[in-house]
Amino acid sequence: MLHLESVSYQKVRMTGGFWKRWQDTVADTTVDAVYEQFDASGRVAAMGHTWRTGEPNKPHIFYDSDLAKWIEGAAYALAFRKNAALEDRIDALVNLIEDGMSPEGYFNSYYQTVEPANRWTERANHELYCAGHLIEAAVAYYEATGKRKFLELMMRYADLIEEVFTVTKEAAFATPGHEEIELALCRLWRATGERRYLDLAKHFIDVRGTQEEPTFHWFNDDRRYAQEHAPVRDQDTAEGHAVRCGYLFSGAADVAEAFDDETLLTAAERIYRNAMEKKMYVTGGFGNMKHGEAFGPDYFLPNFEAYTETCASLAFVFLARRILNMDPDSTFADNLELQLYNGALAGISLDGRSFFYENPLEQRPSDLHFLAESGANSRPASRVRLFSCSCCPPNIMRVIAGIGGYFMSTDGTDTVYTHLYGSSRGEVSLSGKKLALTQTTRYPDSGKVRVKITAEEPVKAVLAFRLPGWCKSPAASACGRGPDRVEKGYAYFEGEWKSGDEVLLDFPMPVRMVEADPRVYADCGKVAVLRGPLVYCLEECDNGPSLGDVRISAAPGFRTRYESGLLGGVTKVTFRGSRRTGGFDGLYRDYDPERAAGTFTAVPYYAWNNRGEGEMTVWIQK
Amino acid sequence: MLHLESVSYQKVRMTGGFWKRWQDTVADTTVDAVYEQFDASGRVAAMGHTWRTGEPNKPHIFYDSDLAKWIEGAAYALAFRKNAALEDRIDALVNLIEDGMSPEGYFNSYYQTVEPANRWTERANHELYCAGHLIEAAVAYYEATGKRKFLELMMRYADLIEEVFTVTKEAAFATPGHEEIELALCRLWRATGERRYLDLAKHFIDVRGTQEEPTFHWFNDDRRYAQEHAPVRDQDTAEGHAVRCGYLFSGAADVAEAFDDETLLTAAERIYRNAMEKKMYVTGGFGNMKHGEAFGPDYFLPNFEAYTETCASLAFVFLARRILNMDPDSTFADNLELQLYNGALAGISLDGRSFFYENPLEQRPSDLHFLAESGANSRPASRVRLFSCSCCPPNIMRVIAGIGGYFMSTDGTDTVYTHLYGSSRGEVSLSGKKLALTQTTRYPDSGKVRVKITAEEPVKAVLAFRLPGWCKSPAASACGRGPDRVEKGYAYFEGEWKSGDEVLLDFPMPVRMVEADPRVYADCGKVAVLRGPLVYCLEECDNGPSLGDVRISAAPGFRTRYESGLLGGVTKVTFRGSRRTGGFDGLYRDYDPERAAGTFTAVPYYAWNNRGEGEMTVWIQK
Repeated sequence: MLHLESVSYQKVRMTGGFWKRWQDTVADTTVDAVYEQFDASGRVAAMGHTWRTGEPNKPHIFYDSDLAKWIEGAAYALAFRKNAALEDRIDALVNLIEDGMSPEGYFNSYYQTVEPANRWTERANHELYCAGHLIEAAVAYYEATGKRKFLELMMRYADLIEEVFTVTKEAAFATPGHEEIELALCRLWRATGERRYLDLAKHFIDVRGTQEEPTFHWFNDDRRYAQEHAPVRDQDTAEGHAVRCGYLFSGAADVAEAFDDETLLTAAERIYRNAMEKKMYVTGGFGNMKHGEAFGPDYFLPNFEAYTETCASLAFVFLARRILNMDPDSTFADNLELQLYNGALAGISLDGRSFFYENPLEQRPSDLHFLAESGANSRPASRVRLFSCSCCPPNIMRVIAGIGGYFMSTDGTDTVYTHLYGSSRGEVSLSGKKLALTQTTRYPDSGKVRVKITAEEPVKAVLAFRLPGWCKSPAASACGRGPDRVEKGYAYFEGEWKSGDEVLLDFPMPVRMVEADPRVYADCGKVAVLRGPLVYCLEECDNGPSLGDVRISAAPGFRTRYESGLLGGVTKVTFRGSRRTGGFDGLYRDYDPERAAGTFTAVPYYAWNNRGEGEMTVWIQK
Repeated sequence: MLHLESVSYQKVRMTGGFWKRWQDTVADTTVDAVYEQFDASGRVAAMGHTWRTGEPNKPHIFYDSDLAKWIEGAAYALAFRKNAALEDRIDALVNLIEDGMSPEGYFNSYYQTVEPANRWTERANHELYCAGHLIEAAVAYYEATGKRKFLELMMRYADLIEEVFTVTKEAAFATPGHEEIELALCRLWRATGERRYLDLAKHFIDVRGTQEEPTFHWFNDDRRYAQEHAPVRDQDTAEGHAVRCGYLFSGAADVAEAFDDETLLTAAERIYRNAMEKKMYVTGGFGNMKHGEAFGPDYFLPNFEAYTETCASLAFVFLARRILNMDPDSTFADNLELQLYNGALAGISLDGRSFFYENPLEQRPSDLHFLAESGANSRPASRVRLFSCSCCPPNIMRVIAGIGGYFMSTDGTDTVYTHLYGSSRGEVSLSGKKLALTQTTRYPDSGKVRVKITAEEPVKAVLAFRLPGWCKSPAASACGRGPDRVEKGYAYFEGEWKSGDEVLLDFPMPVRMVEADPRVYADCGKVAVLRGPLVYCLEECDNGPSLGDVRISAAPGFRTRYESGLLGGVTKVTFRGSRRTGGFDGLYRDYDPERAAGTFTAVPYYAWNNRGEGEMTVWIQK
């Protein structure tokens, strides 16, 4: 396997366009908006351990993780937007953590205030999950600012966890109920060089699924729920809680890389492919079932009922990034991109203030209101500012803030991979020589990308660029010549690069119609409209209600038009189609083939529900 | 309003064909099969009040109602199949009830053994519901055998209920949590002539929705769940638990008839029309939501997830019969027939031994197995012999056993209505003169019905026959002449009738394709195939898997063929269609318009899942 490293978000800066807009939104709005909600809902106070029995805003078991992800995202934002007040705010939280940490190094705001006698007794209670997110936050904050206090606190905590889970074994369980700490410990190892953290991560991976542990009654005690139906290396299919699955195999991929463990890498790839090939929405969404927030049966992909948690898409973004560093196969980068632009990004409003936890592919607000009233389903019909379990808002925030970290990988000696496109400047160091790649592009509205090389002195290197899988006829040239080879979806250019050299990429993105495997009942007779990396949808505000009845013509005559004033700037797609006419006397009538022709408008799925509540559908009758 | 009376099942005997086969199955098999399951599961023992704390088979709150419905169905079966052993078995149960009844007349096997101190304290616990079914059973057994013991026991119980709910008001609630007793009390009034039972029924109808009562937490305390969001007469829409809704308005219709209460009749009709026009599956199924077994939002009719309890169809069969006796409008008779032949009858296997509680319009067994393992959904993929809540088996059994009672109505003086068709002989008495209508027909395989009149002496009468709403060109003639008038879907023939007179009905039943209102997302782009009163479906055993991908041709070339050896004798429908070809590399591919032509076979929906487990779909792509 290869041992590449992702180029840090600190070294890949967005310079304009799509992701710059999103980063600005996050820095301008989201960072404060999420914090305010966390403060108002008692999460900040909870971290101060001031809550006492009988008071309102009782700390919840995952509160620490919410704030930790917020800290991590805020730390990333500091890289492109210095903000002393924000640093002060983070420092204040770190001080709360310092004050609250027990002498032996334990920190959990729920257990320390609500159930002080019950540490490590309830596997379902997210203790190690919260610890993992705190560790990730500490590493991120250290890397962003150089401040070590938080990092050292978390080293103490990790040391305690090592003792509890490998020495005293005093916990009522052996592995986390919700995985996350595995990948966090690997990050802690990389940040500190302390090998014991990597070993502890490997321990959790090795032990999982090899012994009886408390299971989860709400999933019928089915051990697939928390990916422990088999040892991690032996698992074949993406099962159970989708976020847990993505986090577990992200940690497993880290361990695979560190130990050169091909078996573990293969398992991670196998799980990822299974998820993509049997259980994935066309938006990239994973985890179709509200029940257990879990992967459902193969090909079972209902659209209105789709759960597809924002965090689940992100979990597989994390996993893809890790796999790519060992096996640069564009399958994973394509999926990373699909998730980012669709399944994940739909989770945040264009103004950066509101969030979806669930990301259905079909929406009927009146149905949702009814279902909410009767208690059948509490999914909100529009994005909201906070959830009781508010994992998704800081999660999408941290990914957007650190988006640069997903763009490129390098082996540090002679090869640089570019996975994602967008106006940006990425700097790498190859055997001590600096090389910068500056992308200029209107991606994702256009598939043309100009990559300018900057180097203090000529650098011998292999430059690899992902050829998007959605593109039928990608063109790539460097200094006028084609790639030396194309392998697993990457075009490789070898050469000695100097400032002024240019790589030209052209990924034509005509509007495409995609159909699903016939076993997907929900999508039979339907197509999804895509363009480049973007999945499109129909919204009621553009097309009227009863969107399920819209049929796309045999000759749709797709037209595209970039509208800067629409939804923050999007390429709108219009097409010819039809819908039924005539009245119904009751619910049913004899079939009438007559249809009324019309023109319909599709917009990018990530941007839906930004113009008020209304119907939406991704899949359209063909 | 009119004040017709349904002609008793004892006076309308099936003489051959469809319903005779079903009645024979019930008498030969179902009556014993259901009893054996109820005995083996502890229901019979529970009625003996022998259970003691700590023992297995703890009585459940609805056990009495299960056995009561069984007694009622068995009593109806006695009318066409004398069976001394069966009568002994019922008598033995009646003796248990007699022995178990408290001195003041209370009988509830759950409360008397499990929670003896808590009578009338928990509205959700089905006490009045069980009482209602026991009363219905007692009336049925009295009418079938003339034996009064059970009837008198239930009069005592009803007297106690009257005292508890209208005099002492000692119960923790004012109206039943699950309606049923209202219609039962009306039956008790008719059987005994004791007006107080009717008054008590009216009391429950009058009080419902007029005061605060304990609500149901599992439905978010939404008062629609048990139809108490408004006074009964003011309700506009079919809401909440579908069986409760059908039973409530059946009781309301009884009260409306008894008191000539047009407002109440209008409410019942309004509710029925709302259910049909906004919330009904094409099979007649009501109550789409598993959540609360309830009516969902308007036009929200998912097919795989359809709940559509067998009992809900039956509840609206009961209501339709009652409405027709005040307002002979074929809309209600059409729906009664639709439910009987489809939504309800699918609830029982052709061998009469196994049952569906839920009746989805789309089935994928592998999905169901997965969902069951994870605890997401426990719906069985095939009919089963018993449910923990086993209301549906004895309910469909009692309706088939007493099917004759749904065929005809009369005012007892000069008018006879025929609502349903099937080879049968129905006897009525008009102003003391006897008249018999003998139907000879292959219905529902053919729409031709010959009705022969038999009369000891010529009888002046109006004979009304329902013209099925599914038939575009019904023909009806009596002694060679057409009807005197057609009103609300009934053809009326006036005349003096003598033996040998014949009415000829011809309801051509070409195969039809039906489509749903565009607001029904689940059915957009699809048609259902119907013939006569029967809804058809595709099964995997005839058409292979991935049935969602089958598309019916623009010129389907429907062919029909009666096959006596298929599914107990059905008219099979074949049509031209197509399905996709070619492979998929992953879940999605670029849209490919190519399709492979084929011939597909549809069978009646009620008969599905009698040839092993497999996919099924009612709705087919068009």
